[in-house]
Amino acid sequence: MNVVIMGCGRVGARLAELLEADGHSVAVVDIDAYSFRRLPDNFSGNALIGNGLDQEVLKRAGIEKADAFVAVTQGDNRNVMAAQIAKHIFNVPRVICRIYDPLRRDLYQTLGIDGISPTTVFAQMLKEKLES
Amino acid sequence: MNVVIMGCGRVGARLAELLEADGHSVAVVDIDAYSFRRLPDNFSGNALIGNGLDQEVLKRAGIEKADAFVAVTQGDNRNVMAAQIAKHIFNVPRVICRIYDPLRRDLYQTLGIDGISPTTVFAQMLKEKLES
Repeated sequence: MNVVIMGCGRVGARLAELLEADGHSVAVVDIDAYSFRRLPDNFSGNALIGNGLDQEVLKRAGIEKADAFVAVTQGDNRNVMAAQIAKHIFNVPRVICRIYDPLRRDLYQTLGIDGISPTTVFAQMLKEKLES
Repeated sequence: MNVVIMGCGRVGARLAELLEADGHSVAVVDIDAYSFRRLPDNFSGNALIGNGLDQEVLKRAGIEKADAFVAVTQGDNRNVMAAQIAKHIFNVPRVICRIYDPLRRDLYQTLGIDGISPTTVFAQMLKEKLES
């Protein structure tokens, strides 16, 4: 599977590592070159400096042949906008974005954006762990 | 179950809400009174302003009768320290803390602290979602 990840923070870098370990082809885009330090030393995917909202940058990252796009920058709005570009302009089959704000997530869900709120996921997981 | 939560950020507040909805008795401690705005309007648990590393504050929150303690402030070190106080001084049966840094989490795991790294949890979840 070809995957483009926007945002090389802790989650983006970790996801890139996990996907590569499973044999997927990964490209990571981040505006900050320093963020790529989080990638493992033996990372063999593509690391591109650039803004993931820029269609030229996305093309260089291989979005036109991507099977999946994941937006995990720190900004909810950026993630949602990038997800919409990937989904509606480049027709990427599988698009996921992180949306911290649960209310905003619900709104975008109705617009067809598959947003995941780490807040909700994590709180739910803690609850289940406590009650188990 | 009596649960004391340290940190009323998005996750702490959401967890308090979820636990209360399941019939548990919840106390939330935070140094910032403004953080309690995140609790639901009908929250009937205890919201205490104070530092969760202060044993007097923890006692006021009912730590001596707590079945569980959860540390979810923004600081890994604070969370770990509070978890150790809850576990070793107040003998709370179930103690969980958030540790963002996966490396630090592994270290404390060997010291008997049940730390959860949202980074790891979330990246793993995204991977499974992409591969499903």
